[in-house]
Amino acid sequence: MKILVLNCGSSSIKYQVIDMKSATEYSLLVKGIIERIGLSDAILTHKPVGKPVYEVVRSIPDHTSGISLILDALVDPEYGVLESISEIAAVGHRVAHGGEYFKDSALVDKSVKQKIEACFDLAPLHNPANLKGILAMENILPNTPQVAVFDTSFHQTMPAKNFMYALPYKYYEDYRVRRYGFHGTSHKYVAQTACKLTGIDMNRSKIVTCHIGSGASVAAILNGESYDTSMGFTPVDGLIMGTRCGSTDPGALIYIAEKEGINLDRLSVMINKESGMLGITGVSSDMRDIRAAAESGNPRAELAIEMFAARIKKFVGAYAALMEGIDMIVFTGGIGENDPGTRERVSKGLEFMGVKFDPEVNRGVRGKDVVLSAPDSRVKVVTIATNEELVIASDTFRLTKKRSE
Amino acid sequence: MKILVLNCGSSSIKYQVIDMKSATEYSLLVKGIIERIGLSDAILTHKPVGKPVYEVVRSIPDHTSGISLILDALVDPEYGVLESISEIAAVGHRVAHGGEYFKDSALVDKSVKQKIEACFDLAPLHNPANLKGILAMENILPNTPQVAVFDTSFHQTMPAKNFMYALPYKYYEDYRVRRYGFHGTSHKYVAQTACKLTGIDMNRSKIVTCHIGSGASVAAILNGESYDTSMGFTPVDGLIMGTRCGSTDPGALIYIAEKEGINLDRLSVMINKESGMLGITGVSSDMRDIRAAAESGNPRAELAIEMFAARIKKFVGAYAALMEGIDMIVFTGGIGENDPGTRERVSKGLEFMGVKFDPEVNRGVRGKDVVLSAPDSRVKVVTIATNEELVIASDTFRLTKKRSE
Repeated sequence: MKILVLNCGSSSIKYQVIDMKSATEYSLLVKGIIERIGLSDAILTHKPVGKPVYEVVRSIPDHTSGISLILDALVDPEYGVLESISEIAAVGHRVAHGGEYFKDSALVDKSVKQKIEACFDLAPLHNPANLKGILAMENILPNTPQVAVFDTSFHQTMPAKNFMYALPYKYYEDYRVRRYGFHGTSHKYVAQTACKLTGIDMNRSKIVTCHIGSGASVAAILNGESYDTSMGFTPVDGLIMGTRCGSTDPGALIYIAEKEGINLDRLSVMINKESGMLGITGVSSDMRDIRAAAESGNPRAELAIEMFAARIKKFVGAYAALMEGIDMIVFTGGIGENDPGTRERVSKGLEFMGVKFDPEVNRGVRGKDVVLSAPDSRVKVVTIATNEELVIASDTFRLTKKRSE
Repeated sequence: MKILVLNCGSSSIKYQVIDMKSATEYSLLVKGIIERIGLSDAILTHKPVGKPVYEVVRSIPDHTSGISLILDALVDPEYGVLESISEIAAVGHRVAHGGEYFKDSALVDKSVKQKIEACFDLAPLHNPANLKGILAMENILPNTPQVAVFDTSFHQTMPAKNFMYALPYKYYEDYRVRRYGFHGTSHKYVAQTACKLTGIDMNRSKIVTCHIGSGASVAAILNGESYDTSMGFTPVDGLIMGTRCGSTDPGALIYIAEKEGINLDRLSVMINKESGMLGITGVSSDMRDIRAAAESGNPRAELAIEMFAARIKKFVGAYAALMEGIDMIVFTGGIGENDPGTRERVSKGLEFMGVKFDPEVNRGVRGKDVVLSAPDSRVKVVTIATNEELVIASDTFRLTKKRSE
């Protein structure tokens, strides 16, 4: 069953075709991306597995024409991966925000589209683009089932004591201001994969998953369900990120805004685009650049690396305390998978809570699924290469298969 | 050596006279408060130890006249505690903010006063009142040494990785925006007292102190020095408090401000005065009222109690991870000393990190210094009645004694 996975941004579309042979067996046929939608020099980069990369630069005015171009590429005799478009059994869409509506992925129908639209306000950059992709796909392939997979739905199991803010209650009633959390598909996937790797029963476990990339969040997963997570109402909360500040005294932000005479929009840009690792170092938002700067003696780069890891470590401890124990720590994401230094700073010295980290094993591991704790460590430490597209494909498989039965 | 301890607010002055017989032996002679300074019906409440309470209502236009009234009361033949004002060997002042200037309490001189003034911007409600008290005292008793004891100085040992925010670095350079922390005298006092009670060597220990009242903060104390704390640049950060929100997604606050069309000043009032336990419950900011509401079935009161404890518990775990271990948890403050329920929610289930809490012992303990963990608990749990005035008196004793030697 061949599934097209789409991740539509405001000016980009990422795609993959994944052939799901069963709920667990699959093969990737192609991955690709369209960038610069809306411009005359938009670019399609199409990477079919086992064939050369194909690139084309041309005008792509909107999402519908972008998706048409992708479908053309998929059936192209030379660089295509399908005989015919009808081989696409279903389309899975990444959707940023499902609000309180979606506790699971959903087969798209009128009501689902209305609810995605009702969440525009909660994810103004992402949800409108996600819906555009769904509507464009409906136009082109009206009889192919589509599934929406939400970044937020895995976290909908959080109890109120963990998702509510200590703000006047009316803001929850009036605007649904609460913690939602993001990266749900990734947290779920890496927890499941790490459980398989270690033999831990996910339904009876206490796991902290650290999705650490330019965006970053930590989740407390209790008996297989998200119990708390570090991103909040918006993705700016929690960990220090590439350009986002993470948890920060709101009083400090008000003070800065008053001193600088800046308004709320500008403040939002500052905490989302100019803070985090970029803000501290002034060098870069990219951990590789920052490591290079630190190695050549830049004290602010060294400080940023320390702060970055300390913040993650605090969340690991916080969630261990909140769940009253911990069985496993999982690292994933660009930095979590590829930066042994951050994994070591976070995991070392946690013997008091049963973690016995193996720095030797850790050192060379990049982009693989590996257990990093000593064999006799009560708490396992694992790094897992995340695969959000696979979660989207497998949820699409599950929901459309159910429908056809 | 009799020391007058003053805590000057914008319209109130709290005072005590403490007789320091040595650095550790002392006796309290009187405590009192003037409220409603600036009004025609200001009130002095004077409570001499072993004598009846004396109250007077009259016009008190400013801090100087308020302090004169206090000094009159101290030497009054009937309800006074001194023969003559000259018995006051020194005056200790609580000062809210010492910025990065003060790592310890300081004997007041011209430079100290200038630095307190330089921190007006950091504590606009408190530092000006604190300085008023110092100047008024200088006018009345120009030859009596005065000592400033800062709420922030104990936390000046924090390393940069814990006190810096992940904001553009220039805001630290231009405005000294960083984590300062507050309640320093209380965190220090209760850690010291708990170490004496348990025989732990404070200089080689990892302690988490929880000062939990209507204002509340947690501190990580590593080898006797503050290593991290939950209040930040302002006291609004960290724990959920009576009316303050504590750590909250800044993106959520910007969203609310935009929805409601409110400005930064109004937003500041909202997060400082209308949030926290009051905001969640809509009932009260006082834990006793909220417990009563929860017991009569108010679900938001129950939610607030759960959120309140969960937040503290997360900080305990975070700081244990950050210090890579923990020897003791200390509770103090109005709620920390008197609310066994909160202490139990925070401390139970932490066996994975070596805590063995005794709920039976805990149950009846209010306002006393008691070990609440089981005898074989690796991590001690202790409640200590804080005494910030005693820290002020003993720092004043230490600094003025040194001077007179």
